[in-house]
Amino acid sequence: MKATILTIGNEILKGRTVNTNFSHIGHVLTFAGYEVFRGLVVRDDPSEIAWGITQATGFSDLVVTSGGLGPTFDDMSVKAIADALGIPLETNADALRMIREKYSAQNLELTPERMKMAMLPRNAEAIANPVGTAPGVFFNYRGVSILILPGVPSEMKAILESMIPRIRIPTVHYYEESVVLHGIMESAFAPVVADEMKKAGGSVYIKSHPSSAELSHSVLEIEVSGTAQDDATAVKVVRATLESIKKRHQEMLNKK
Amino acid sequence: MKATILTIGNEILKGRTVNTNFSHIGHVLTFAGYEVFRGLVVRDDPSEIAWGITQATGFSDLVVTSGGLGPTFDDMSVKAIADALGIPLETNADALRMIREKYSAQNLELTPERMKMAMLPRNAEAIANPVGTAPGVFFNYRGVSILILPGVPSEMKAILESMIPRIRIPTVHYYEESVVLHGIMESAFAPVVADEMKKAGGSVYIKSHPSSAELSHSVLEIEVSGTAQDDATAVKVVRATLESIKKRHQEMLNKK
Repeated sequence: MKATILTIGNEILKGRTVNTNFSHIGHVLTFAGYEVFRGLVVRDDPSEIAWGITQATGFSDLVVTSGGLGPTFDDMSVKAIADALGIPLETNADALRMIREKYSAQNLELTPERMKMAMLPRNAEAIANPVGTAPGVFFNYRGVSILILPGVPSEMKAILESMIPRIRIPTVHYYEESVVLHGIMESAFAPVVADEMKKAGGSVYIKSHPSSAELSHSVLEIEVSGTAQDDATAVKVVRATLESIKKRHQEMLNKK
Repeated sequence: MKATILTIGNEILKGRTVNTNFSHIGHVLTFAGYEVFRGLVVRDDPSEIAWGITQATGFSDLVVTSGGLGPTFDDMSVKAIADALGIPLETNADALRMIREKYSAQNLELTPERMKMAMLPRNAEAIANPVGTAPGVFFNYRGVSILILPGVPSEMKAILESMIPRIRIPTVHYYEESVVLHGIMESAFAPVVADEMKKAGGSVYIKSHPSSAELSHSVLEIEVSGTAQDDATAVKVVRATLESIKKRHQEMLNKK
């Protein structure tokens, strides 16, 4: 199952904000059994959000968006997404209740800016936001699940966490483990990586991350990941490959 | 002028690596006068890289990619980009010289994995990598400038830095400044933000970043950015808006 992450916000494109939401969502979805297929980042602009959601729904089983759910003029994700998909917006009774409860607990009135957060696509589900005010939004569009999350990291994380039991793929178990190898350059170790991938016949993926410049003292992190139908098998195939890699690394050092 | 950032790497999609390259490139391009228009993240897969570069060249004046330039099997960016754009690869004399010098300085031979880094699109320019071995790649494709950078942050930064004088737009000067406001909720301040944007008539953009939950003690960072034909004007319009915002914030606090 393929997932796409769509992050919305000029501050990300301008490099003002590091897109940690993206990596958090990617991590959660990977361990929930998805192949995180593509990532898109778009501006706070209805036509850009429309481009993003149209693209994303075209190549995904699940689209998770983050950003643009709050009360300001540039929080336009829900409306832009609904408009792009041709779904009417209407006041969602659950969302309105959630928002009203939050503000009235502090004796605050429901201004138009606050009411806006209760306008959801027809038939969408409002997902409680335990940290902030804007609820998450979850709905199905032509077989694609769409989960719309706020951009404030604590709110995004809390809502996503609450959705894991509902979106996780029970038959896909992901595992990854890394080893850090010293004294061998990435270019010298490249044939081993290619060979071990081939040996594993598609059951694992190996990626090397040089954490120092190739030509000074070489530090190479080798990450092995795999998916299987159960946790134990995933761990087993990943560890077997890691052991083989460590052995071959030692042999190369001995030869030097 | 529109710029698109294309980052390549499974580790980013899986959330293993936070995409700090993206924010660094976004920041540099914004201050170089570009509107950073969209961001794309794709897997280490030739067809995915082809999708990314084809999309990006369709809506940009400048495309900057990062990731996939090294010596391992999954470092396939240059070949995949060249193939997608229909440009033949050939050994680039400058690139070969750069790579040979680096390895021969350490008495290391030019293996096929290392030679691969000298295979560049025809007529592309090899950009010296002062930190690592894989040169950057710069070329023009149907009016779109394409800059291909490594994924190792120190190498990416060094090559991008060296390119700034050549890619910066001399007539566009960008400035941004922020102020942190306490005690006013984002939803309460939203009308002020909208009004100040309107008053400035498109010369500035204002974005509010709540750094605490809306309903506890409110901390709101207001970021004002603008572009002008020279630095002094950009600073002036941004600061004038900021002053107005601070004044109105004070008035709201006084009324409370």
